[in-house]
Amino acid sequence: MNYRKIYNVLGSILLLEAVLLVLPVMVSVVFREGFRTALSFLITMALLGAAGGLMKIKKPEKESIYARDGYMLVALTWLFMSAFGALPFVISGAVPNYINAFFETVSGFTTTGSTILTAIEPLPKSILFWRSFTHFIGGMGILVFAIAILPKTEGSAMHIMRAEVPGPSVGKLVSRLRASARILYAIYIGMTLVLIILLFAGKMPLFDSICTAFATAGTGGFSVLNNSIEGYHNPYCEVVIAVFMVLYGVNFNLYYISLKGHIRHAIKDEELRWYLGTIFAATLIITLELTVTRHHFGHSLRLAFFQVSSIISTTGFTTTDFDSWPTLARIILLLLMFLGACAGSTGGGLKISRVAILVKSAKRAIKKAFNPGRIEGVKMDGKPVEEDLVTGVVNFLVIYVIVIFISVFIIAIDGHDMITSMTSVITCINNVGPAFSEIGPYGNFAALSDLSKLVLTFDMLAGRLELIPMFMIFSKYIIPRKYA
Amino acid sequence: MNYRKIYNVLGSILLLEAVLLVLPVMVSVVFREGFRTALSFLITMALLGAAGGLMKIKKPEKESIYARDGYMLVALTWLFMSAFGALPFVISGAVPNYINAFFETVSGFTTTGSTILTAIEPLPKSILFWRSFTHFIGGMGILVFAIAILPKTEGSAMHIMRAEVPGPSVGKLVSRLRASARILYAIYIGMTLVLIILLFAGKMPLFDSICTAFATAGTGGFSVLNNSIEGYHNPYCEVVIAVFMVLYGVNFNLYYISLKGHIRHAIKDEELRWYLGTIFAATLIITLELTVTRHHFGHSLRLAFFQVSSIISTTGFTTTDFDSWPTLARIILLLLMFLGACAGSTGGGLKISRVAILVKSAKRAIKKAFNPGRIEGVKMDGKPVEEDLVTGVVNFLVIYVIVIFISVFIIAIDGHDMITSMTSVITCINNVGPAFSEIGPYGNFAALSDLSKLVLTFDMLAGRLELIPMFMIFSKYIIPRKYA
Repeated sequence: MNYRKIYNVLGSILLLEAVLLVLPVMVSVVFREGFRTALSFLITMALLGAAGGLMKIKKPEKESIYARDGYMLVALTWLFMSAFGALPFVISGAVPNYINAFFETVSGFTTTGSTILTAIEPLPKSILFWRSFTHFIGGMGILVFAIAILPKTEGSAMHIMRAEVPGPSVGKLVSRLRASARILYAIYIGMTLVLIILLFAGKMPLFDSICTAFATAGTGGFSVLNNSIEGYHNPYCEVVIAVFMVLYGVNFNLYYISLKGHIRHAIKDEELRWYLGTIFAATLIITLELTVTRHHFGHSLRLAFFQVSSIISTTGFTTTDFDSWPTLARIILLLLMFLGACAGSTGGGLKISRVAILVKSAKRAIKKAFNPGRIEGVKMDGKPVEEDLVTGVVNFLVIYVIVIFISVFIIAIDGHDMITSMTSVITCINNVGPAFSEIGPYGNFAALSDLSKLVLTFDMLAGRLELIPMFMIFSKYIIPRKYA
Repeated sequence: MNYRKIYNVLGSILLLEAVLLVLPVMVSVVFREGFRTALSFLITMALLGAAGGLMKIKKPEKESIYARDGYMLVALTWLFMSAFGALPFVISGAVPNYINAFFETVSGFTTTGSTILTAIEPLPKSILFWRSFTHFIGGMGILVFAIAILPKTEGSAMHIMRAEVPGPSVGKLVSRLRASARILYAIYIGMTLVLIILLFAGKMPLFDSICTAFATAGTGGFSVLNNSIEGYHNPYCEVVIAVFMVLYGVNFNLYYISLKGHIRHAIKDEELRWYLGTIFAATLIITLELTVTRHHFGHSLRLAFFQVSSIISTTGFTTTDFDSWPTLARIILLLLMFLGACAGSTGGGLKISRVAILVKSAKRAIKKAFNPGRIEGVKMDGKPVEEDLVTGVVNFLVIYVIVIFISVFIIAIDGHDMITSMTSVITCINNVGPAFSEIGPYGNFAALSDLSKLVLTFDMLAGRLELIPMFMIFSKYIIPRKYA
């Protein structure tokens, strides 16, 4: 392991986080909040500066890193970012308990959006801004951001992007990684600016527009209102947000391809078609069920489309208490939590392309049982998928299922009802946000024990970082045997 | 496909089923039941005789069969056996609705034990006997039985045993298959006789002892009382049954090895140790939770051991309404449903050895991500497992998860609560029997729609036959393109 290089990059990231904290300080000044709130950010900045500076004192002897260094760097980055990022919540008094603050921050950076807050609106604006901003930072990945702006990261970029960008493959990325990272961030920021303008034009207050846009962009789901998007009673904004949740769930490379003029190629993408088809089918079924049982057609359609778009993109905004919906609608949302959005988007979940590969691999296994001699590849977009990737995806499912089962077992110790115990894990590992029963759209995670919160924190990080990096913290590498 | 050979063997099986129906007719005579009940069996025997005879008219031109013929034979055998086996329920008037009767019969043969009956005790004894006897027939596998007694099956035996014996491998079986089948059945029948004697000695009525022993042997779970084993209020019998449920969940080859004097080898078996260790740990945790919240230690231990042994062996007998237990205990039982018993036993579920291979394969995948160059095999019992087997097990999980998700989606259309929708599928595909909420120990499957019952019937068969054969009914092979 190249620990010097790892700590060197980590140090840069922490300094970067200190710089990003300037924004909430400015918010605090603009809204003339008390000194304590601003101070909580300034203290955190000082601590980040000190830690980052210390880590950067020793220059690395060599620049090259391997896959495991990449995983270690990603795991440590997200843990340290969250550990420091939780401090403003604690110091300002907004979330006095550190474990709660850590849960909330991890939920922010991983763009999960599960909250332990029981009352959101009374909190200082700067704290709410920081909470939403963590979604924006985490959505595209802080290390991808670092690759885009820091010098000397080109060499280590591949292993980092592979570990941090959601989805089974970064194969479609343009080959020069720094350039890719910059393009991805440009698209990301551009879309977010458009969203802010659209929301503000729809009479959402500017502060709310910015925070909501951050949470939409990262497919996070933290809102500045207790009642999430429902609280605005603004059908126009609901539709705008629903459409943008769908857009942020699309593979960003398709936008890049489209910008380069190959829009036809982008539209033909198999994953995109499955994604849009699933949204259409799920919205249709739920709309029909709600029309038959609850509301008139138009209202049902609006509720169904928003909730489907929110859950499949793993954002987690809500405009109704979907936990009170009929069983079929709830089960569809539960299945969408597993499915998730497209690879290379800011969304979580298994990802459409991964599920497609799983389904095709299952079909092949059945065919092979009937015709043992026949050898057949799995295809995506009409092209054969590498066997290593298929194996990787299948192993991903195995690890994913094992992590879910173990987590549910530990959460069950708390003694909350079965639905809460099971769906809290499902919503956290898929980075969705709300789930059912006690943690439904009108509930929160406050009542869970500290142990459960730590397990769910692990699940959120495991889900966001696609499982592998988080196991670094259980490996022998976490304690360097020889610090080289 | 060698359809002539397939139909020829299938014909023999149907004739065999006709012969087996002599037993319930005798029961009917002994208990002096009405003419209609006996007639229901006689009509079924006549139909089986006619169908079996027709299928055997044309002699096969060649004897050899391939893997897909084996799967097809297994799928058709179980479907036809159940389709005919359901007739006595309908004709006697015990279960007037054919879909209900089919569900009940499939539940019997697959040793699931899920019931659509709301009142069991008023039914004729011969019907109850047949219901329990289906467990006994299905437990070891009807085709294995056929291999043991029918001539000219030796050539096709391997593909059949691979498809019908539960678990990822029949590798440990002694090589001569007819001999193996006979030994397995001898052990199976011997253990069942001992159990009948022990129950009868414990003051259970003889008829109940026989039926209960059949259901225990097959790890089925149909009881002749509405309240399952709880209805006997007989702690001695509860303990005897609990111990035998554990014993029937052990790989039968270990008994064979022990009988040959290699008991040390048997005890060292890795799967056995995981199995017993899991039973011990689950019983301990549930006992402690019940002791703290409900009963005194002894009572808690008895309830916990019985329920754990019943669920992990996928039998499904109950001595209490475990659905009213605290969450941790219920979640443990739910996880045990997935786990299941040992390969080569009469139990269902994923099987311990399969889960062990999955866990080891997951560990290896994580290690490999950290050290891409390193190649490492998965080991069981200290010996490397063939890569093909590991791939097969991993693919099994993928297909299993997909079948569960699709099934839950269809069941949800009924609109029963989420727990019922989810756990009905889990209990059926794992061949357990009861689950939670509406289908808990005190509930039944009567309220589900016909569509749901058919889906669950598919799941029970898919679970019992280890997924692959059931996909034959969706394949192009089901309609012979050229009848050769």
